[in-house]
Amino acid sequence: MATDSSIMDANSFNIENLAGLDSQTQSLVQRREKVLGSSYRLFYKRPVNLVRGEGEFLWDAAGTKYLDMYNNIPSMGHSNPAVVEAVYEQMKKINTHTRYLHENIISYSEQLLSLMPSEIDKAMFMCSGSEANDLALRMCMNYTGGKGILISKEAYHGNTFLVSAVSPALGGEQELLDGVRTVPTPDFYRSGKSEEEFTAWFCSEIQKAIDDMKAHGIKLACFIADSIFSSDGVHPNPKGFLKAAIDVVHKNGGLFIADEVQPGFCRTGDSFWGFARHGIVPDLVTMGKPMANGIPCSALAGKKEILAAFSSRFPYFNTFAGNPVSMAAALAVMKFIKEKNILEHTKEVGSKLLEALKEVQAQHKNIVGDVRGSGLFIGFELVSDAGKKTPDKESTLKLIDLLYDEKILSSNCGTYGNVLKIRPPLVFQSEDIDWFTTSLDKSLSKIESER
Amino acid sequence: MATDSSIMDANSFNIENLAGLDSQTQSLVQRREKVLGSSYRLFYKRPVNLVRGEGEFLWDAAGTKYLDMYNNIPSMGHSNPAVVEAVYEQMKKINTHTRYLHENIISYSEQLLSLMPSEIDKAMFMCSGSEANDLALRMCMNYTGGKGILISKEAYHGNTFLVSAVSPALGGEQELLDGVRTVPTPDFYRSGKSEEEFTAWFCSEIQKAIDDMKAHGIKLACFIADSIFSSDGVHPNPKGFLKAAIDVVHKNGGLFIADEVQPGFCRTGDSFWGFARHGIVPDLVTMGKPMANGIPCSALAGKKEILAAFSSRFPYFNTFAGNPVSMAAALAVMKFIKEKNILEHTKEVGSKLLEALKEVQAQHKNIVGDVRGSGLFIGFELVSDAGKKTPDKESTLKLIDLLYDEKILSSNCGTYGNVLKIRPPLVFQSEDIDWFTTSLDKSLSKIESER
Repeated sequence: MATDSSIMDANSFNIENLAGLDSQTQSLVQRREKVLGSSYRLFYKRPVNLVRGEGEFLWDAAGTKYLDMYNNIPSMGHSNPAVVEAVYEQMKKINTHTRYLHENIISYSEQLLSLMPSEIDKAMFMCSGSEANDLALRMCMNYTGGKGILISKEAYHGNTFLVSAVSPALGGEQELLDGVRTVPTPDFYRSGKSEEEFTAWFCSEIQKAIDDMKAHGIKLACFIADSIFSSDGVHPNPKGFLKAAIDVVHKNGGLFIADEVQPGFCRTGDSFWGFARHGIVPDLVTMGKPMANGIPCSALAGKKEILAAFSSRFPYFNTFAGNPVSMAAALAVMKFIKEKNILEHTKEVGSKLLEALKEVQAQHKNIVGDVRGSGLFIGFELVSDAGKKTPDKESTLKLIDLLYDEKILSSNCGTYGNVLKIRPPLVFQSEDIDWFTTSLDKSLSKIESER
Repeated sequence: MATDSSIMDANSFNIENLAGLDSQTQSLVQRREKVLGSSYRLFYKRPVNLVRGEGEFLWDAAGTKYLDMYNNIPSMGHSNPAVVEAVYEQMKKINTHTRYLHENIISYSEQLLSLMPSEIDKAMFMCSGSEANDLALRMCMNYTGGKGILISKEAYHGNTFLVSAVSPALGGEQELLDGVRTVPTPDFYRSGKSEEEFTAWFCSEIQKAIDDMKAHGIKLACFIADSIFSSDGVHPNPKGFLKAAIDVVHKNGGLFIADEVQPGFCRTGDSFWGFARHGIVPDLVTMGKPMANGIPCSALAGKKEILAAFSSRFPYFNTFAGNPVSMAAALAVMKFIKEKNILEHTKEVGSKLLEALKEVQAQHKNIVGDVRGSGLFIGFELVSDAGKKTPDKESTLKLIDLLYDEKILSSNCGTYGNVLKIRPPLVFQSEDIDWFTTSLDKSLSKIESER
């Protein structure tokens, strides 16, 4: 399943370029190389040693300031003082596990479920999005008695044995589980279809994959998808197209896991959850990354009968998960979202940013094929031939490097590796747009001039 | 694989007993019941709402003080100020991920590897022991090309799809993976053998299981074990018996994963790692629980060729793992261990505690069948017939309840659920022994009088 955009050959440092680094960075890279397993990768041709963060800004050891256009974990801003203080206060008191009573996990669950459709009425906690998806898949297989799992072509759902096998975006030699079927990336830009045609096409692809399962004696368990199709290259539109697809899954007796690790917690601006943007009621919802602004914390929320069917057969306990400190961080994030009206802010500033990026596109029509997004999750797609929409990964990697020169941190994604993934902390401000778009404009001109 | 001691029917609260609780606890339990998935369990007939911790002591909401004889995550003491301040200081600066350079993960890895045999030369980080074991098993299967996994009869290695299937201690309807074979619990107490005979017997059981794999066309990948056999009921002796067993595994072309989640970080007093106590050089080492005193953090250390063989085929990235804050907590734990000489302390106070418990046993020979341990990990086994060594789970659950009346927190484990698991934070002091042994003596007398 290796693809152009596999995580293995994405925007990353190559040790052969060690000599080109300054001596301090060289030393860190060499020490790191000596002790860390060979799976580790560093972003950028010139790896960056970040020592301080505040809001949407980061500073390296030399004091250079960067604009963070990439990181979605510190969604409430790097080193958000409200989260820092909440963790500090809780750590000074106690940090145990869920076999003792504690107020934090209870009040957090109450708040979390109040933000869900009424059908989703139970919560559980884990340490990572991978653990949440691993459990969600097991629950779906248990509830349906099926092993058929639907995913998108370039899906990524985590790093355990089970979820790696539903993550073709990993590339390498990663194989998919026997019962897995992929549906194509919902690439509206390349489809040449109207919104209605596109929706009908995606539904028919879902049905086709389910029919293929049936033909091979595989019972459908679930469709798992991140509603913004992040690793597929950021595909939010047309808004609502996913609802029809989930109806097909349900009609065929399958469940839907909304993997909200990427689109959750206001990221898409339209609604608190990515699935809500499409008008979907999922059966299980998983979440992680921005949930506690960087303290390891993830969750699964779902319909109680699905959770009960699992717990009646299999015990489950997760040592660190839902502990008072993780929950204090998650509670602080929730409070910050409400007090600062992060959802509305994300919608507003996201729209402004999208508009500004479309102006950049208008200046560089030959290289910027498409700009699409929702809230503060935007895909900016480079092509070598705008008419043919030919993906241009090489220019995208060059663009990342040129943006780095402008002290902007970004990276790429997508089936063809040619989509600039624009996903800053949600505290990104209108005032920051200019730094980004001016740098983009300059970098694109440079790339065009060298073509 | 359900057993008497399955996690499902262990020391836990039953909602039918709600009426017996005070009103504040009732309210918390009911709110919790409403929002948390049905997998969640609470310890004790009367669940405890802990709001403060310091060293080896805990306090509930009513201000009652408890002696913690159970929790191994806050090994450096509940709310250890050195860890709290280290996390606070790092959180104020920055918390990112391993695709940027950062000093913390590098210096922690250097320290960690300096404590390992020289053959173990690379480190990787995860969020939980489950994630570490999940990856370790995948690495062993990849390196050997085999799917045969050896475990002990009552093993527990975590909660993902893969590691649940090598965790018979879960009970319920949990099935084991196809290639898994179990070896008996190394129960020296019940064996009636000399140390030499016991060691030879365990080696022959290992060989028998491997031969059975071969007979079924399964190639041996690895043996994964926690060297103190925690969920099997705490079996540390005879010291060194495991070395001979690992030699058998190696001779048959298999690898050994030392699951140090339980015995690691000075717990067993004799050495920093449980495997070192037995004189073993593992191929992979996994660790978790006490590593960062409660901040979710785990790791895998191993021989570079095993890690490289995996990374050359499969990408691996773990979002939260090895982040600057988790590493700051882990660094603070490491510093505390060195500065306070925790290894020596554990050995000393552990010996005193073991001796004191043997005195309690001498007073209650008819009910205390065996007391065994290493450092601050001690199994205290109750029997209904000392001559026949008949396990007495009922009395063990009664003992936990009576100790609770004495404000001592404990729990049980083992194949028969009749072993009191004594595993306090490592900052447990000699002065605390009296509270514990006096309470034990009193509780055992009560149980005996009611027999």
